[in-house]
Amino acid sequence: MSKKRVVIAGMGFGGLRAAKKLAGSDVELIMVDRNNYHLFQPLLYQVATAGLEQEAIAYPLRGLTRRWQGASFMLAEISGIDLANKCVETDSGPVPYDYLVVAAGSRTNFFGMESVAAHAFDLKRLDQAEDLRNHILLMFERASSESDPVRKSALLTFVIVGGGPTGVEFAGALRELIVYVLSQDHPGISADETRIILVEAADSLLTAMPGELREYAHQKLTSMGVEVLLDNRVVGATAETVELYGGAVLASHTLFWSAGVAAAELAGSIVGVERGAGGRIVVQPDLSIKGHPEVFVVGDMSSCLDSGVPLPMMAPVASQQGEYAARTILAREQGRTVPPFHYFDKGAMATIGKSSAVATAAGFSVRGYIAWLAWLLLHLYYLIGFRNRVVVMMNWTYAYWFQERQVRLITSRKRRAVSV
Amino acid sequence: MSKKRVVIAGMGFGGLRAAKKLAGSDVELIMVDRNNYHLFQPLLYQVATAGLEQEAIAYPLRGLTRRWQGASFMLAEISGIDLANKCVETDSGPVPYDYLVVAAGSRTNFFGMESVAAHAFDLKRLDQAEDLRNHILLMFERASSESDPVRKSALLTFVIVGGGPTGVEFAGALRELIVYVLSQDHPGISADETRIILVEAADSLLTAMPGELREYAHQKLTSMGVEVLLDNRVVGATAETVELYGGAVLASHTLFWSAGVAAAELAGSIVGVERGAGGRIVVQPDLSIKGHPEVFVVGDMSSCLDSGVPLPMMAPVASQQGEYAARTILAREQGRTVPPFHYFDKGAMATIGKSSAVATAAGFSVRGYIAWLAWLLLHLYYLIGFRNRVVVMMNWTYAYWFQERQVRLITSRKRRAVSV
Repeated sequence: MSKKRVVIAGMGFGGLRAAKKLAGSDVELIMVDRNNYHLFQPLLYQVATAGLEQEAIAYPLRGLTRRWQGASFMLAEISGIDLANKCVETDSGPVPYDYLVVAAGSRTNFFGMESVAAHAFDLKRLDQAEDLRNHILLMFERASSESDPVRKSALLTFVIVGGGPTGVEFAGALRELIVYVLSQDHPGISADETRIILVEAADSLLTAMPGELREYAHQKLTSMGVEVLLDNRVVGATAETVELYGGAVLASHTLFWSAGVAAAELAGSIVGVERGAGGRIVVQPDLSIKGHPEVFVVGDMSSCLDSGVPLPMMAPVASQQGEYAARTILAREQGRTVPPFHYFDKGAMATIGKSSAVATAAGFSVRGYIAWLAWLLLHLYYLIGFRNRVVVMMNWTYAYWFQERQVRLITSRKRRAVSV
Repeated sequence: MSKKRVVIAGMGFGGLRAAKKLAGSDVELIMVDRNNYHLFQPLLYQVATAGLEQEAIAYPLRGLTRRWQGASFMLAEISGIDLANKCVETDSGPVPYDYLVVAAGSRTNFFGMESVAAHAFDLKRLDQAEDLRNHILLMFERASSESDPVRKSALLTFVIVGGGPTGVEFAGALRELIVYVLSQDHPGISADETRIILVEAADSLLTAMPGELREYAHQKLTSMGVEVLLDNRVVGATAETVELYGGAVLASHTLFWSAGVAAAELAGSIVGVERGAGGRIVVQPDLSIKGHPEVFVVGDMSSCLDSGVPLPMMAPVASQQGEYAARTILAREQGRTVPPFHYFDKGAMATIGKSSAVATAAGFSVRGYIAWLAWLLLHLYYLIGFRNRVVVMMNWTYAYWFQERQVRLITSRKRRAVSV
């Protein structure tokens, strides 16, 4: 009897953990992704704020398969899944499977606001982080040679939507980039002339965190110079303006959106499955699709209730689900069963700035320097590849001591005129 | 009396050295470049062969101006120079000057062969190195899933034109990438199935080097598995073929061109100057333009006879000319004169592969391990920025010990279908 073939569709946190668990076991493993690397998404915002080079948070997938017996990688765009014929459809042809782990992640949700989708930056892909970095640096170059104070102010106003971890971390990192680096680089621009406005629809930042941490984050950001706008939301945008609910318009050339995610488009192309909020695929307690026990959906694509509560779309959930799906496949092959998936909540954290972060773990709340150090160490730990860890560590150390960020390069291929 | 204004047009090796010399002196210094960074071009081929991240060979120019009194940077595309009115024309408006150092470098010369220009890769800019890396990696991904042996062979055939230092270094680095990394990454591809063909019009490689080094380089490349085709040249190309002089056609999806350079386009837009071979601007013995003693042309744009011999287009010439122009400007301001420019030839070098390079200095020839070590140290020395040196050093050490190159990422935004 030939080995069973397990196909993993998408090599984010969920797919990667599933692959690691299955590697070396008695199955044929095929990893499919549209990129040839695993991306460490939690640090994308640092690429966007010139703190890290993009290569440092990506790891080539063939660097894994070359070490794994029975595992192979396929660079392909997945266009659909034929559940009836057990086949993944890709632009490189069909890939039949015995077991399938669907882990294609999420896309940004602009909730149908076309003007926002057209003008806002979001952070899901490596090239988006590079684009955003180029854009921020270019705004300062333009402002440097801008004589009209109104236009200069608009160039130096940055609107961030979404007070979750991404929005908070990006706001803090951007403020530090401006205070420590860009206002030093540009003699004609003082940090006081710049504005960072963080817009959140709820009545506090980091709503998933305990009250004291929410307040700490709010106070810290405010003291750093970030304007926090609660109970408000962005409803429209042009290239040079951002419209708030109620009609107020901010003059700003930069809108960053981190206020919503939905399941990757692949979720919508799978026929005959139940979909929940954000287009996520509703799964059984063992993460499989109803009627298709050989197909598992993990991570952001999966709508999964744990003790009646829907699980959040975040890396630790995806990782644990990926590992669970792999264990379940191996158990089935050995005729065993496994108990339903249960998420073990290790806590959550967000960094705000230098020596400042918030974290929860096992019911405890930590903030300030200790939380920041924990954040650094955990992110280094979860990064893949020795080289990447060293490069990231080096960049952080360099930035910490020298208050500089050397990756402030405008690498765009587009024409980068500086208008007068 | 207000300070004299010196404008430097182009921040490659020539412009950078001129700026360093003028920084802190009693002039107003304006550095203009279309990029916000200085690029260390000699290592571009290592970015293209996945040996270095692109950020490691670029240094932000504002990182220099923030430390230099009286110096400023302007991100702009230069469209022309109005010699009569002493003004540099840019897309950010005119920049008047008292002294001007023109240092816009060179562009690739395809000698009017449009099909080659349309299909060949060349290495002048950072994004070209990234594009070439993406392309090489993609060829292997495609070959991995290619069942037709003829098409597979064409995907794995790489034609390099030009046996100068760039062609030789690129050929060696590509061969090592294939042998040590890509053939290990792709279980279905052996290094023997791949071809690297280095085409040179002269009867030897590295024609500027002594005979024994030319032979060493030839033998070394051949023993590594590179096919060296002398006395031949490429006359045409399509996306999937390369045509040689005489009509022979190679099936290859990758053509790399390093067989000619000409002055940057800016040289052609300056009215009323004499132009030499490759569109280079003919200069006086003090590197100024005839009739315009306040305008200096340095580096690849400058056609300069030294003891009756035209100087080659290479970094050391540009650096020395940049420094000379700066010294001449300072001397003139103090009412002194300086002797005509004279190039001090420190030698030349090219690396072929791991532990293997050729170098000449002060009439001596060195090859093998010692030359390679000298190459490494000199390139680290000439790189700008402490951080960049550490990153490059780390990548080299990592590649040396682990035979791996982690930056093998396909970061292209284009659709990267793998056809079957």
